[in-house]
Amino acid sequence: MYRFNCDYLEGAHPQLLKRLTETNLEQTIAYGADEYSKSAKEKIRKACKCENAKVFFLVGGTQANYTVLDSILKNYEGVLSADTGHISVHEAGAIEFSGHKVLTVPGTDGKIAAADAKDYLEKFYADATYTHMVRPGAIYISHPSEYGTLYTKDELKALRDLCDEYSMKLYLDGARLGYGLAAENTDVGLSEIAEYCHAFYIGGTKVGALFGEAVVFTDESSGDYFFTEMKQHGALLAKGRILGLQFDELFTNDLYYNIGKHAVALAMKIKKAFVEKGYKPYLDSYTNQQFFILENEKLKELLEKVVVDDWGPVDETHSLIRVTTSWATTEEAVDYLISLI
Amino acid sequence: MYRFNCDYLEGAHPQLLKRLTETNLEQTIAYGADEYSKSAKEKIRKACKCENAKVFFLVGGTQANYTVLDSILKNYEGVLSADTGHISVHEAGAIEFSGHKVLTVPGTDGKIAAADAKDYLEKFYADATYTHMVRPGAIYISHPSEYGTLYTKDELKALRDLCDEYSMKLYLDGARLGYGLAAENTDVGLSEIAEYCHAFYIGGTKVGALFGEAVVFTDESSGDYFFTEMKQHGALLAKGRILGLQFDELFTNDLYYNIGKHAVALAMKIKKAFVEKGYKPYLDSYTNQQFFILENEKLKELLEKVVVDDWGPVDETHSLIRVTTSWATTEEAVDYLISLI
Amino acid sequence: MYRFNCDYLEGAHPQLLKRLTETNLEQTIAYGADEYSKSAKEKIRKACKCENAKVFFLVGGTQANYTVLDSILKNYEGVLSADTGHISVHEAGAIEFSGHKVLTVPGTDGKIAAADAKDYLEKFYADATYTHMVRPGAIYISHPSEYGTLYTKDELKALRDLCDEYSMKLYLDGARLGYGLAAENTDVGLSEIAEYCHAFYIGGTKVGALFGEAVVFTDESSGDYFFTEMKQHGALLAKGRILGLQFDELFTNDLYYNIGKHAVALAMKIKKAFVEKGYKPYLDSYTNQQFFILENEKLKELLEKVVVDDWGPVDETHSLIRVTTSWATTEEAVDYLISLI
Amino acid sequence: MYRFNCDYLEGAHPQLLKRLTETNLEQTIAYGADEYSKSAKEKIRKACKCENAKVFFLVGGTQANYTVLDSILKNYEGVLSADTGHISVHEAGAIEFSGHKVLTVPGTDGKIAAADAKDYLEKFYADATYTHMVRPGAIYISHPSEYGTLYTKDELKALRDLCDEYSMKLYLDGARLGYGLAAENTDVGLSEIAEYCHAFYIGGTKVGALFGEAVVFTDESSGDYFFTEMKQHGALLAKGRILGLQFDELFTNDLYYNIGKHAVALAMKIKKAFVEKGYKPYLDSYTNQQFFILENEKLKELLEKVVVDDWGPVDETHSLIRVTTSWATTEEAVDYLISLI
Repeated sequence: MYRFNCDYLEGAHPQLLKRLTETNLEQTIAYGADEYSKSAKEKIRKACKCENAKVFFLVGGTQANYTVLDSILKNYEGVLSADTGHISVHEAGAIEFSGHKVLTVPGTDGKIAAADAKDYLEKFYADATYTHMVRPGAIYISHPSEYGTLYTKDELKALRDLCDEYSMKLYLDGARLGYGLAAENTDVGLSEIAEYCHAFYIGGTKVGALFGEAVVFTDESSGDYFFTEMKQHGALLAKGRILGLQFDELFTNDLYYNIGKHAVALAMKIKKAFVEKGYKPYLDSYTNQQFFILENEKLKELLEKVVVDDWGPVDETHSLIRVTTSWATTEEAVDYLISLI
Repeated sequence: MYRFNCDYLEGAHPQLLKRLTETNLEQTIAYGADEYSKSAKEKIRKACKCENAKVFFLVGGTQANYTVLDSILKNYEGVLSADTGHISVHEAGAIEFSGHKVLTVPGTDGKIAAADAKDYLEKFYADATYTHMVRPGAIYISHPSEYGTLYTKDELKALRDLCDEYSMKLYLDGARLGYGLAAENTDVGLSEIAEYCHAFYIGGTKVGALFGEAVVFTDESSGDYFFTEMKQHGALLAKGRILGLQFDELFTNDLYYNIGKHAVALAMKIKKAFVEKGYKPYLDSYTNQQFFILENEKLKELLEKVVVDDWGPVDETHSLIRVTTSWATTEEAVDYLISLI
Repeated sequence: MYRFNCDYLEGAHPQLLKRLTETNLEQTIAYGADEYSKSAKEKIRKACKCENAKVFFLVGGTQANYTVLDSILKNYEGVLSADTGHISVHEAGAIEFSGHKVLTVPGTDGKIAAADAKDYLEKFYADATYTHMVRPGAIYISHPSEYGTLYTKDELKALRDLCDEYSMKLYLDGARLGYGLAAENTDVGLSEIAEYCHAFYIGGTKVGALFGEAVVFTDESSGDYFFTEMKQHGALLAKGRILGLQFDELFTNDLYYNIGKHAVALAMKIKKAFVEKGYKPYLDSYTNQQFFILENEKLKELLEKVVVDDWGPVDETHSLIRVTTSWATTEEAVDYLISLI
Repeated sequence: MYRFNCDYLEGAHPQLLKRLTETNLEQTIAYGADEYSKSAKEKIRKACKCENAKVFFLVGGTQANYTVLDSILKNYEGVLSADTGHISVHEAGAIEFSGHKVLTVPGTDGKIAAADAKDYLEKFYADATYTHMVRPGAIYISHPSEYGTLYTKDELKALRDLCDEYSMKLYLDGARLGYGLAAENTDVGLSEIAEYCHAFYIGGTKVGALFGEAVVFTDESSGDYFFTEMKQHGALLAKGRILGLQFDELFTNDLYYNIGKHAVALAMKIKKAFVEKGYKPYLDSYTNQQFFILENEKLKELLEKVVVDDWGPVDETHSLIRVTTSWATTEEAVDYLISLI
C-alpha cells in the first residue's frame, strides 16, 4: 500500500547509500574530523555564500533544535515560537529539559509574523514586571513550516531586523529545507537564509539522508564551543564521516535541490488534482506537504487504499488530512492516489 | 596506513549495509514501531533470556548513558562510577547537564569493586550530614571497561546485591559488549547481565553497526516512559527501522558473537606477540583493547608505520599505548603490526 | 502616602517579631530540627487534620513552587496551569529551569476549571502523537488565585477526581491562603485543602510573616526526600527555627485566621465603597485583592494621593487597578482611600 | 548547655533585630528596590572600594553559590573546586542540578593552590580528548575555607592570574568572611577580594544576620541579568528590605568587622588554652573555627557538658573535633569550655 503520511518512510537516496557502501571499509578519524566531513562543510559554506560559517552535523531535528538553542540562549532566556512550532508541541519538552521556556506567539499557517513578534516584545518590555519574566532571547521559525508554508525574503528580513533591535538571535529549523528551496516563486535560497539567520539547520533526514542535519552558525559570536556542547547533549556521532559523506553527496551536483524539485513537482500535481476534483486546500502550500479537508466517508474509503495522515476532525463530518511527498515518492504512486479521489 | 587506534574507524559490517540496501525503498512506520525493530527487540529479549525486557534503540553511547541514567535516577540522586568511568571523564558533563552528579569511587583497572562501593556507601550513610549530600541512586559500570577488563559473574552479583541492599539500580555500559562476550574464560553472558543489571546497553557502534546501541531494561519498574524520555533527550531516531534492521542482523546467526570472536582472537594474537617480544601488558585484558608500555623511541618508530593510540607518558622514557581490534580488523593488518615490533 | 499596591509592603506581624526577639539568643539545632519547628509542624498537621502530613518550611513562593513541582513531577512530566498562573508568567522560568514545561489551559478569573483541564487531557491522550509531547503530571492551582478568586469545595474535588483518573497530582499555591480561609461563604478550609490536594503551601510572606511558606505533603508517596531536594534547590534555611517560630506563632490562638479576617473585612469595606460610588468590580473577589476599572483621569488623581497597583489599560480611557489589603492595613488608611473616590 | 558546634545557632545580632523592629511597619517597595537596600549596596561598594560593583542580596550560601556560578559559567563549563569545597560535598548537588560539573582538585587544609589548579589546567588542555571533557570555566574558593584557613593576598593574586590566563572567573564563597577579615596577620581585606575575584559573597547568616548573603560582582561583564536569574533560581526575597536593612546595619560603624574580631579573639583564646593543655591543633586556623584531635574518652566526657562538632575518628582511639565561635559566643561560655579541658 502506498504511503503518503510523512517524508521519512524510506531509507536514504540510493546515491548516498552507494557512497556509504563504497567507502565502508576505509578507516577514518572519528567525530567528524575526517576528510569527507570537511569537504561537506566546505560545500555547504559555498552553497550558503558564507565562508566563515561554522558547520556541524547532528543526527536528528529535535536534537539539533535543543542543542543549538541551548547554545545560543543565555541561561535566563527563552525562545519565541509560533504556537504550532515543533519545539513547542512535538519535542517532548526538550527545550525545557535544557532549562529554557518556549514562549508562544499565535502563528498564521505555521508562521510567525514579525508584527506579532514585535507586539509580543513591546508588551513584554512595557510590563513593569518583565524582570520577573522569561526574557526572549531568540526567535524560532521553521521553513517550510509544519504546515508547508514559506517565509518570503522580506518576512525573514523583518524578523532579523526585529532580532537586531531586541538583541535576539534568529534560528531557522530547516527539517524540510530542501522542499522549501525548490518551491515555485520562493525568493529565499540558502544564501538568504545564511544572511538573515544567526543559525539554522539544513535537514537531511527528510530530504534524502538516512538521517542527519547540518547545523550552520553564521553568527560570528556563536558556535565556538558547539563540538563540546554536542557531546554534552548526546548529539555527537562517533563515526562522523557517515554524516559527512551523506551531506557531501547531497551537495554534489545539486542533488539536494533536485530531490526537492522532484518531491515538490509531485506535490503540485497532487494539489492540482485535488483542486480539480473540488477539494479546497486547507492552506496554500507550495512545498511537499499538502493539506485538504475531506468528508469523513471519503477519507475512510481512501484509507482503505493508501495511507495519508489524518490530522483529525475539523467539523462533525469532515477531517483534515496531510499528503506528503518526498525524494522517494514515485510518479506511479501519485497517479494511483489521484485516481482514487 | 593500518589503524589500530580505536574500534570505530570503519563503517558497518557488510551484512548490515547489505540489509539496509536491500530494504532501502520499503516504506515503514517511523520511530521504531516497524516490524524490523520489533523483530530485533524480540531476538534481543531471547538472547537475554528475559522475555519482559523493554528494549529501545538509541544512536550513541553518551546518549544512551545520560538518557537511561536520567530515567532511572530520582532528581536528587547521583550515580556511583569508577573514577575512570566514561560518564565521569569523557562525556562532556552530559550526566550533570541532566542534573545528576557523578560520584566517583577509585577504580581498579577500570572496574569498580563491590567492596569499594560498599565502603563508599557505608561512609556516606554514617556521615551525620548525608542528607546534605547527593544520594547514590545507581552504580555505573562498563563491561568491558575503558581498560578492556571484565567483571566476573560473582563480581556482578556482588554489585547487584549491594544495589539491592541500598535501593540502588545497577547500570552497565556495554559499548564494547560484543568483545566482552567473546573473551576467553568469561562466565558472563547476556543472560547473566540481564539477571544482575536493572538496565544496560548492547553496543552496536563499536561492534559492527554504522551506529546504534540497544538499551535493555530488565527492571520491571523502569523504562515505562522511556520513549518520551528519548524524544525529550534528542535521542529518538525518526527512521527507527535503520537501528532495528542493524540489530536484527546482528542478532541473526550469532553475528554479534562472531564479530566479537574475530576481534578478540586477533587481539590475543597481538598480545601474545608483544609478550613474546618482551613487552609486558599494562594490565591483563582479554578483550579487543590491549595496553602496552613502550619506549618512546620505539613508539615513535612504530607510529611512522601504523596508528596506535598514544595514552601519554608513564615515565620519562616510556609511554602507554592502546592497540584496538574490531570486526573490521584483518589478519593481514595484525601480521603487519606484529612484524614491526 | 498610604500604599495598597501589594500585601508585602511591611515587615512581620508584631507578635512574630516579638517572638523572634524573645528567643533571639537561644541556641538551637540548625536546618529545622529545632523544637520550635517541630511544634509548628505539629500545629499545622492538626489544623489540616492530617496527622501524617509531611511539613517543611521554605523561604518564598517561587522557591516553594519549583522545589515542590520538581519533587512531585517525573522528569518527563509537565504541569498544567491556568494561563494566568504565577508559575506560567511571573517566576522567570523557574519551572523550566528545573526541566519541566508549564502547560497552559485558559483560565477563568485566574482559576482552572476541571472541565477545561479534562478537555485538555482528553485531547492530549486522543492525539496519536502524544508520546512525543509533554505528559501532564500535575495540576497547579492558586487559592486565592492571582485575581483573588477562590475554588469551592466541589471545584477542588472535581480537580482531585480528575487527577486521580489521570494519575496526576494536585498542587495548590497558597501564597495568600490566609485571605482565602477568611473569605465570606467559602466552604474550603485547611482540612478540605489537605483532603483534596497532594501538596500545597500555606503562605507566610503575604500573611504576617517576615518571610516563609509552609509546604505540606499529604500524599503518602511524596516528599520523602524533600529535605535533600530543598538543599539541592537552594531552599534550605540554615537557621530553620526562624521559620518554625513564625509559623508556630501564626498557628497559635488562631493568629493566621485572624490576620486573614482583618484584611478581608477591610477589603470588603473598600469593595462596598467602590460599588456604592458606581465602580463595578472587574470580577467578584471576596479576598484581600480587589479589582476595579477606573477612568484614566480618576486614576491619575488617585495616584497622587495613594498607591494602588495599575494593571494597565482596558480600553482607551480606562485602566484596571488592584487594591490590596493585608494584616498591616489600618482602618484609617482604608477610610482615607474611600474618601478619595 | 553551651554549644560550640557551629556559628548559626542563634538568631541575629541584637542591633539588626532592633533595626528590623524599628522599621517594621514602614511600607517599602518590594524585591530590593527600597532605600535601605540601596544604602546597604552603596556601603558595600565603598567597603570594597569598587564603585561599579553590582551588589545583590540573597538568602543563603548554597543559593548564592549555585545562582552565581550558573550565572558566570557558560552552559558547557564546570567549576574547579578543592575536593573539600562546600559546593563539592555539602550542597546536595545544587551545582549539578543547574547543569554544571564540579571538577575537583586535591586541596590543602581546605584551600586550592594556584600551582595545583595550574597543573589541572595544563593536563586538561594537553589531553587530546579535552573537547570531550568539561571545560573549567571558574575556580571556586572559600575564604575562610571549610577548615578555617585563609588565602594570602599573593595566593589570591596567583589564582586570579591563572584565571586570566585561562579565561576563567574567580569566585569566592565568603560564608564566614567576617571571621576571615578579622584574623591576625591576614593581608586580605574586602578591597583585595574585590580586586582579585570576579564575584564573591559577603556572608551574613554566620556573621550576625538572621540570614542573608551579599553577592558582589566586580567583573563588568557579569551580573547584568542577575535579578532575573535570582527569580529563576528561587532566590529573590519579596521583602528585600529585610536583607537590605541587615546589611546596612552590618556595614554601619564597622559592625561587620567588630563581630569578626569578637569571635576570632575568643577562638584564639580557645586555641591557646587547648595548646597549653597539650592538644595539637589539627591545622593552623586563625579564624573562628578551631580543629583539635581528642582521645575518644576525653571527647565523650566533654560532650556531656558542652556541644562541640564531632568530625569522626582519625584513628582507633582519637577523633577530630571542631570548636566554633560566633558573634554570639560569650566570654563566659569560652571560659567554661576551657575549664573542661
